[in-house]
Amino acid sequence: MQATLTTQRTITLEELDVLLAVRRAGEISRAELQAQLGLSRATVAAIVSQLVVRGILSEAGIGDSEGGRRPQLFAINGGFGYIVGVDVGATSIDIALADFNNQILERYAEAADVRDEPEALLGRIATLIEQVVDRHFAHPEQILAIGIGVPGPVNFEDGVLIAPPLMPQWESFSIRDFMRRRFPSASVTVDNDVNVMAIGEATTGAGQGVENFLYIKIGTGIGCGIISHSEIYRGRDGAAGDVGHICIDYNGPICHCGNAGCLEIMAAGPAIAMRGREVAESGKSPFLARRLAENHGELTATDVGDAAKAGDRAANEIVNLTGKMIGGMLATLVNFFNPQVIYIGGGVSNIGNRLLSAIHQAVLRRSTSLATRHLRIEFSPLGADAGITGAISLASEHLFEVVT
Amino acid sequence: MQATLTTQRTITLEELDVLLAVRRAGEISRAELQAQLGLSRATVAAIVSQLVVRGILSEAGIGDSEGGRRPQLFAINGGFGYIVGVDVGATSIDIALADFNNQILERYAEAADVRDEPEALLGRIATLIEQVVDRHFAHPEQILAIGIGVPGPVNFEDGVLIAPPLMPQWESFSIRDFMRRRFPSASVTVDNDVNVMAIGEATTGAGQGVENFLYIKIGTGIGCGIISHSEIYRGRDGAAGDVGHICIDYNGPICHCGNAGCLEIMAAGPAIAMRGREVAESGKSPFLARRLAENHGELTATDVGDAAKAGDRAANEIVNLTGKMIGGMLATLVNFFNPQVIYIGGGVSNIGNRLLSAIHQAVLRRSTSLATRHLRIEFSPLGADAGITGAISLASEHLFEVVT
Repeated sequence: MQATLTTQRTITLEELDVLLAVRRAGEISRAELQAQLGLSRATVAAIVSQLVVRGILSEAGIGDSEGGRRPQLFAINGGFGYIVGVDVGATSIDIALADFNNQILERYAEAADVRDEPEALLGRIATLIEQVVDRHFAHPEQILAIGIGVPGPVNFEDGVLIAPPLMPQWESFSIRDFMRRRFPSASVTVDNDVNVMAIGEATTGAGQGVENFLYIKIGTGIGCGIISHSEIYRGRDGAAGDVGHICIDYNGPICHCGNAGCLEIMAAGPAIAMRGREVAESGKSPFLARRLAENHGELTATDVGDAAKAGDRAANEIVNLTGKMIGGMLATLVNFFNPQVIYIGGGVSNIGNRLLSAIHQAVLRRSTSLATRHLRIEFSPLGADAGITGAISLASEHLFEVVT
Repeated sequence: MQATLTTQRTITLEELDVLLAVRRAGEISRAELQAQLGLSRATVAAIVSQLVVRGILSEAGIGDSEGGRRPQLFAINGGFGYIVGVDVGATSIDIALADFNNQILERYAEAADVRDEPEALLGRIATLIEQVVDRHFAHPEQILAIGIGVPGPVNFEDGVLIAPPLMPQWESFSIRDFMRRRFPSASVTVDNDVNVMAIGEATTGAGQGVENFLYIKIGTGIGCGIISHSEIYRGRDGAAGDVGHICIDYNGPICHCGNAGCLEIMAAGPAIAMRGREVAESGKSPFLARRLAENHGELTATDVGDAAKAGDRAANEIVNLTGKMIGGMLATLVNFFNPQVIYIGGGVSNIGNRLLSAIHQAVLRRSTSLATRHLRIEFSPLGADAGITGAISLASEHLFEVVT
């Protein structure tokens, strides 16, 4: 991979349109670009040669003839530089190094505690990035862009977490500025983890070409990424998709946010684990009683899922109840948003089809028939990779500053 | 107003961009267009003269100098042709004739019953349009575009109402084809009434420049128009915003849709009127008992609003309860969508500030503090005019077919 000049970070809107069209197509001719973008032949030719000179595009093969000479095809120059994706979970960090084609070259993950000081956690991430780049005999200056997903609402313009319930020490801390100091050559983009997952499905997964969909992550919390008009939707304050704190029972238990009966406190991973412990201790679930003993008194949502898969009746009831609560909330969102697809991801989704079917049933029961006529609800095909691929896409989308 | 050639209905994307920029600005110079749109000087000059030749733009005054010669300004040529807006309510039709500048020249409204056969109602609308055009010494062929808002979900591509609960006879009937046969020169665009109201606020009202907001119409039913990424959002099936059938009480009364406890059956106009009748008959509200007698046994939501304004305690409780139910549903939408503004419109909004304040309180109580940090909830400034101005904007936006 060649060293590249990364100082010129501006691009015109038309150049960006061409770049994105090439990214979508893989390989494309000037004539096809012209047709797709409604630009003149001369404009396309000028932009393409400029992007080739800058090393952003490269000549690919020769395409099929459409009547005349067989056309030169162009592609993204994967060697233009590196893109790094980072997925910060509540208990782990996941890092990927990709080329400029967004092709992942290497991945690395390790356990981490997001409640740590931001300097410590981000410092560790920076070190890991340097190590992975080093293993590819490259220099940190060749990193063009870093995209980071974090578990909390993000002020997207500033790259700062806002009022993060899981990470109080991160309030007002600029993740972007920290990473920029460590990697001055890279543009740094920070977004909420579920937004990043939705971007992953939208750009490289099953959501490609789907104009609107929801991505629901069910894990320690419950969050939602929203794609509307084919773009990620963040809302006024970066708080869009904070569905974990939608009230589903005014008389429900008190959530860590201070309100009663939030979806998250009643249906996310910890609630499932707590219900599992109850049926283990009361003797209603022999499977979970055994698992509890084996795990030295610890029980997780995954254990409840395992029990349900093994046919344990009490565990099945927990899964059904969970699906009913999540599906009831989704029924409201379906009436409001009429999405084309709802992708379900996050650790709890590993519980499997019984959960999906309970969610589906609850949505069908309480949404209008028109809004569910074409609705698909399915597990995120990218699954655990949605975050990291989304972080890379996010980074590469915000690599250039558009000038007019 | 001069007769114009209305056959050429195609426009390039760049021409449309220029047209929309002129519409937004009112009057604008070539240099400003160039700066705003990132087009070259030559391209802007060519497009502007082409649009002037076609009669779409006209030369306006001379602008202030920015260093050199004082620039020629351009504006929309109001005389290019007529735009018609139609707002079909459950019990009324409202028609406006506008020039190509979207300036309303005349309005006309009359009572109508939307449950009538579509041919009868649309035939009446067509006749009214012909009459209003005639009063302006113009010909129907000068109508360039007709925009129509109808009270039900619309398949926007086809201009057909889908599963309209209020208007069963309209199922599969193409409103667009009917109007096209009567006005062959006009492009016809049909949308849901609340979407049209949201478009009204977005294009000519307080919503100008607001990237995302909700428009809630509270009348015989309850619906919501959604602006996201500065554009109307219709969802997969044109069903987005159907918030009237969101469940707010699993044990609530049965709605006409067949489900229990829909917001609409519990908090829209008829529910308010029914509660008003109860307190009138039980003697809890002397004001409403009197009104009921005066109105020969009829009572409406407006009567309940009047009673509340007069300080009637039972009526105030009804208004508070209504606001609490609507606000509870909105709290969910605020967590999900994090809108910048919620505009409240529709007949029931005339009940006034007590309703608004009850809605506000319920939203603040159950939304996250981040999502409400900048949220404004206010009555639609355009009010009863939102539908008709939105219909005109809708029509003028879909006047041209974009070619590349």
